[in-house]
Amino acid sequence: MARRGEFDLITTLFAPLARRCPAALGLADDAAVLPPFPEGQATVISADMLVAGVHFLPEDPPDRVAMKALRVNLSDMAAMGATPVGVVLTLALSPAEDDRWLDGFAAGLGADLEAWTIGLLGGDTVSTPGPVTISVTILGSAPPGAPLTRGGARAGDDLWVSGTIGDAALGLKVLTGAVAPADSTHRDALIARYHVPCPRVRLGVGLRGLATAALDVSDGLVGDLGHLCTASGLGARVETGRVPLSPAARACVDADPGLVSAVLGGGDDYELLFAAPPDRADAVQAAARAADVPVACIGRLEPGAEIALIDAQGQPVLLDTPGWRHHW
Amino acid sequence: MARRGEFDLITTLFAPLARRCPAALGLADDAAVLPPFPEGQATVISADMLVAGVHFLPEDPPDRVAMKALRVNLSDMAAMGATPVGVVLTLALSPAEDDRWLDGFAAGLGADLEAWTIGLLGGDTVSTPGPVTISVTILGSAPPGAPLTRGGARAGDDLWVSGTIGDAALGLKVLTGAVAPADSTHRDALIARYHVPCPRVRLGVGLRGLATAALDVSDGLVGDLGHLCTASGLGARVETGRVPLSPAARACVDADPGLVSAVLGGGDDYELLFAAPPDRADAVQAAARAADVPVACIGRLEPGAEIALIDAQGQPVLLDTPGWRHHW
Repeated sequence: MARRGEFDLITTLFAPLARRCPAALGLADDAAVLPPFPEGQATVISADMLVAGVHFLPEDPPDRVAMKALRVNLSDMAAMGATPVGVVLTLALSPAEDDRWLDGFAAGLGADLEAWTIGLLGGDTVSTPGPVTISVTILGSAPPGAPLTRGGARAGDDLWVSGTIGDAALGLKVLTGAVAPADSTHRDALIARYHVPCPRVRLGVGLRGLATAALDVSDGLVGDLGHLCTASGLGARVETGRVPLSPAARACVDADPGLVSAVLGGGDDYELLFAAPPDRADAVQAAARAADVPVACIGRLEPGAEIALIDAQGQPVLLDTPGWRHHW
Repeated sequence: MARRGEFDLITTLFAPLARRCPAALGLADDAAVLPPFPEGQATVISADMLVAGVHFLPEDPPDRVAMKALRVNLSDMAAMGATPVGVVLTLALSPAEDDRWLDGFAAGLGADLEAWTIGLLGGDTVSTPGPVTISVTILGSAPPGAPLTRGGARAGDDLWVSGTIGDAALGLKVLTGAVAPADSTHRDALIARYHVPCPRVRLGVGLRGLATAALDVSDGLVGDLGHLCTASGLGARVETGRVPLSPAARACVDADPGLVSAVLGGGDDYELLFAAPPDRADAVQAAARAADVPVACIGRLEPGAEIALIDAQGQPVLLDTPGWRHHW
């Protein structure tokens, strides 16, 4: 398979993406140099690693892979209420990634860097005999005291979630053949959500000062709710009937009620799960409208350590999948 | 092979290493939050990725692997004259990395985080069917205007290098059996330099305001000199007899003069290569003494684009290895 040399990779693929980011120094130096953040702003930093065959399918379109690698990191900034500034990319390429794959990857990366107005600050490109492996570190900023952590929820707080839950987990099942929606629109919608998350960056910024705790749903709603509860020293009661589902996910669950485990326990939603006192409900809704993202109140934080999932009939809901992905 | 679950990895291995770094939020949140840098300080950021079998040997001791992954990044900070602040680690583990390997890795990482007084800010741990892959992003700070870039050298500047050159490339040859020093002290010294670079962080800080250009030697002296010359729009003349060699490297080259290609063209030195006007030579030497690192003037920057390597007899030196590793 034809592939550019690694210097060519930098000059032809990545340096053009960094052109609008003076801090990157043209990707030609040992590091990027960013001017100081505005007075008093904290630096927020996070990273995620994606491995072909583990976090995406080897046959996934390369532009979507790049977008996913970027967006899972944007989602971490959203969860902290931080404004993303730029990313550093390290990339281990196997012999399978030919020029066509690389062009697609760079196109997706470039489109999203522009869409989110963030800079490509630097990185490293190496060879691997293993699967293509992508690590993105994201840098953001937030005003003093703004960052939303997982540990600030209080008993009695409402529990909210953005967007819809379960689409990505179902999308993966569609791609692997485990689920086959009758409606091709539903099929495409679920796959799109698996390929390309919609990080809720504007909502995260809007929740500064409103949410008492927040995280992004990457391990699955139930698993991540567990993280929030553990960090806050609380339990929670979730009414599963209030968990927002897309029409596509609703159709899947109606056809096979067992898929509720995949919906509530599967990963890759990249929605925000957050807590806020009930008297801020109107303000939360206003922040969601301003960010153009729907939010739904799905339950409440409670004293104790139990996470209770209750269906519309008031019966406990039992799941057979725990959260599966662990980042720190 | 026994291995902890991934949550256990974080709580038992990595969270203890982050304990002294409040910004890491216990590795329990979606991102780290660093307080603002002192007034006006720039953020300097860089990353390197290491793959088993490519950048280190699968049988290398895991503590040494962790130290190398950290130190190649510290070396990038040194090259910029930046003060390192903290790192983000992403780690793709293959089934081969058992608890013993992980304990060793964490021990090496922890020792070096402490030695360099930097924080573990966060990261991600994932599984891979390929070789263990380590990506470290390092964050540093530097006063306004301080960062040393590659492009500031002027014709007539002296060309300097720190420490000794070629030890790591020879150390790799020792490990692979291509070179067998008669003296076991030499053998151990070369291997140690391959396993664990000595990033010249204090020297880098000391060269702020003195060096006109700098980089760290990771691709090999000749390859990296090419980068400095290209960035500065200059050529260079290097007297190879003035390139500082350790006693171990000297003995190898004396026994096999063909090894000079490995010494001058091989990689992994992680010494600083820098330019400074001749009238700053005394100040450069003083900065080197303060940092407790020897430096040697090996040549001069010249107009044009040619890189001339000249031996003690004034004859051109021809090498058969180009630089081999490319980071940006």
